[in-house]
Amino acid sequence: MAKDLINGYVSVETHKGITTIEFFHPQSNSLPHRILEDLANEIHDAGRNNETKVIILRSGGEKAFCAGASFDELSKIENATKGFEFFSGFADVINAMRKCPKFIIGRIHGKCVGGGVGLAAATDYAIAVEGAEIKLSELAIGIGPFVVGPAVKRKIGLSCFTQLSIDATMWRNADWARRKGLYAELHTSVEGMDESIRRLANQLVHSSTEAMAELKKVFWEGTEHWDELLASRAEISGRLVLSKDSKECIRTMLKK
Amino acid sequence: MAKDLINGYVSVETHKGITTIEFFHPQSNSLPHRILEDLANEIHDAGRNNETKVIILRSGGEKAFCAGASFDELSKIENATKGFEFFSGFADVINAMRKCPKFIIGRIHGKCVGGGVGLAAATDYAIAVEGAEIKLSELAIGIGPFVVGPAVKRKIGLSCFTQLSIDATMWRNADWARRKGLYAELHTSVEGMDESIRRLANQLVHSSTEAMAELKKVFWEGTEHWDELLASRAEISGRLVLSKDSKECIRTMLKK
Amino acid sequence: MAKDLINGYVSVETHKGITTIEFFHPQSNSLPHRILEDLANEIHDAGRNNETKVIILRSGGEKAFCAGASFDELSKIENATKGFEFFSGFADVINAMRKCPKFIIGRIHGKCVGGGVGLAAATDYAIAVEGAEIKLSELAIGIGPFVVGPAVKRKIGLSCFTQLSIDATMWRNADWARRKGLYAELHTSVEGMDESIRRLANQLVHSSTEAMAELKKVFWEGTEHWDELLASRAEISGRLVLSKDSKECIRTMLKK
Repeated sequence: MAKDLINGYVSVETHKGITTIEFFHPQSNSLPHRILEDLANEIHDAGRNNETKVIILRSGGEKAFCAGASFDELSKIENATKGFEFFSGFADVINAMRKCPKFIIGRIHGKCVGGGVGLAAATDYAIAVEGAEIKLSELAIGIGPFVVGPAVKRKIGLSCFTQLSIDATMWRNADWARRKGLYAELHTSVEGMDESIRRLANQLVHSSTEAMAELKKVFWEGTEHWDELLASRAEISGRLVLSKDSKECIRTMLKK
Repeated sequence: MAKDLINGYVSVETHKGITTIEFFHPQSNSLPHRILEDLANEIHDAGRNNETKVIILRSGGEKAFCAGASFDELSKIENATKGFEFFSGFADVINAMRKCPKFIIGRIHGKCVGGGVGLAAATDYAIAVEGAEIKLSELAIGIGPFVVGPAVKRKIGLSCFTQLSIDATMWRNADWARRKGLYAELHTSVEGMDESIRRLANQLVHSSTEAMAELKKVFWEGTEHWDELLASRAEISGRLVLSKDSKECIRTMLKK
Repeated sequence: MAKDLINGYVSVETHKGITTIEFFHPQSNSLPHRILEDLANEIHDAGRNNETKVIILRSGGEKAFCAGASFDELSKIENATKGFEFFSGFADVINAMRKCPKFIIGRIHGKCVGGGVGLAAATDYAIAVEGAEIKLSELAIGIGPFVVGPAVKRKIGLSCFTQLSIDATMWRNADWARRKGLYAELHTSVEGMDESIRRLANQLVHSSTEAMAELKKVFWEGTEHWDELLASRAEISGRLVLSKDSKECIRTMLKK
């Protein structure tokens, strides 16, 4: 699979039962609609692939894990329909992760912002490295963490989700994210993180596929309405992003 | 607004988009029905006031933030109807906070007991100072944290709510309350707490009103039945407080 | 009551309002169906006994608190009906604890594995001693923590439940279990643990029976469907345990 370093890519590789899905975008792994679409499709396919026993979700580069939505695309949204479509991209990825019958291990090698926190939260077992700070900065640009909210709240609880959402300019460090349950493990080095991911993935490759599929259902019990819920959330964000204030904030961010 | 230091008061002040609501009662900010009523009304009004962008809830004095229900009034409850009415006072305040479309920042400058823990829990972002210990002492006087229970459990989770309710004589320190999610921040000095409240309030004054109103709905999703739930809880407390044991406990407390 | 040290036992003793229920099995307190049945019955009876104000659940010996399901019995399950019946044993105990109108204090003196974590989670207030590590090892033998899952998730939250279930070979230490809410208290010595249990039990003996019964309902609100839920979970485990892989794992474990 070609890795387009200019426009970003989603690559997939399956080896001995482990399917590794990697997304990349040169702007701190912020995600345009096309990559979100590819990502949702690849997760869906890996879920149905008999050769896949377990999935690792990672991103390219060595800096941010995912900076959220693409500011380029955000700034070009002109009406509520386009807004809804754009934010549905994150909804589709989260819903694909939720419905995938395989466990998804997250490799969180760097910072997560906005939608990026949502992706980390929607993995079943996130393994991170020190420095993988998080921020839900949506309110600072006139919108809110509406689409990723249910996934984040499900993992770290109502109270922490509220804190992150309200104090939108504050970074929380990786240890905070671990203590609150977003990360299952936190390592001091990338090597340690990768070693632990290898160990767990290999262990799961040798575990019962049927038991894991039943467990996955149990983990996501009570989220059966998320297709509709996240769509209604995409509508809210898609509307708020049109406001004059939001437009101005995004333009300012783009110049930085 | 006159501040009645003998009978207690609720005062309101709006300045540059920030509405500060302060309650006070000379007996450790324990709350009689009249003050609970005023408090619910002022929160409701601030929610509708176009000049209010964000609300700060605080209490007067430098000792307890709120010692819960007024023992004077508790001791005078003669029948289930009066009991229901009294406990509905806390239900009304919590429901007013829940329905208010503005974020409520809690300034927790001291100890919280019983209903006081409920008030802190019902704010959207509580900022506290060391020494702001908490206790759910209801069971020790023959009742239980029924009315405030849903708000406390929503913030700190079922397990911690259970612990506080069962071991009713045990203080938990402010750091425990922060780790469990009741407080979003904990400061070592009152100055630090106030500085942080100022920073956050000013930031929110410049945030999108519409985005904050939508977020407030998201935060309180799933509590739409609380008008009825808290009323049914007020009925339970209002009935239990009539028992001989409860009456005796309250009388003993009053003498202290 | 005779204590059968060869086949295991459940003993019950009531003293000054405190009913102590103790279970024991020589194989690390792993539980065959007969003991699970006795345990459910004794919890049910204590709930109805007017002399019982509070219940302490403990196990015999000085090593494991409970190693989960009996491997001897697991290895002999021949069809889905027998599998369902066996796993219903844990469901019945958890449902008996849930419906019991008295508070149940757990005395967790050692390690908890699989179903043992479920029992600790279903107590209302667990007091443990250092060394009381926990592990949900079900996936490692081709099944999953399906029956105890709802009780564990209710106490420690979705995120921690997921972590324990996926990384099925990893012990989490007693302090982790305390921080996550499984244990309300953790002591450095057995004496300290027992002293604290005595203090709390005596305090509750002198608390309002009616208030505690109402609180117990509040704590378990939202679990009214668990009779059916846990039965459907017992069906899943009872089916998975028949697989060739699961049979082999269990046989290997038995030889150890």
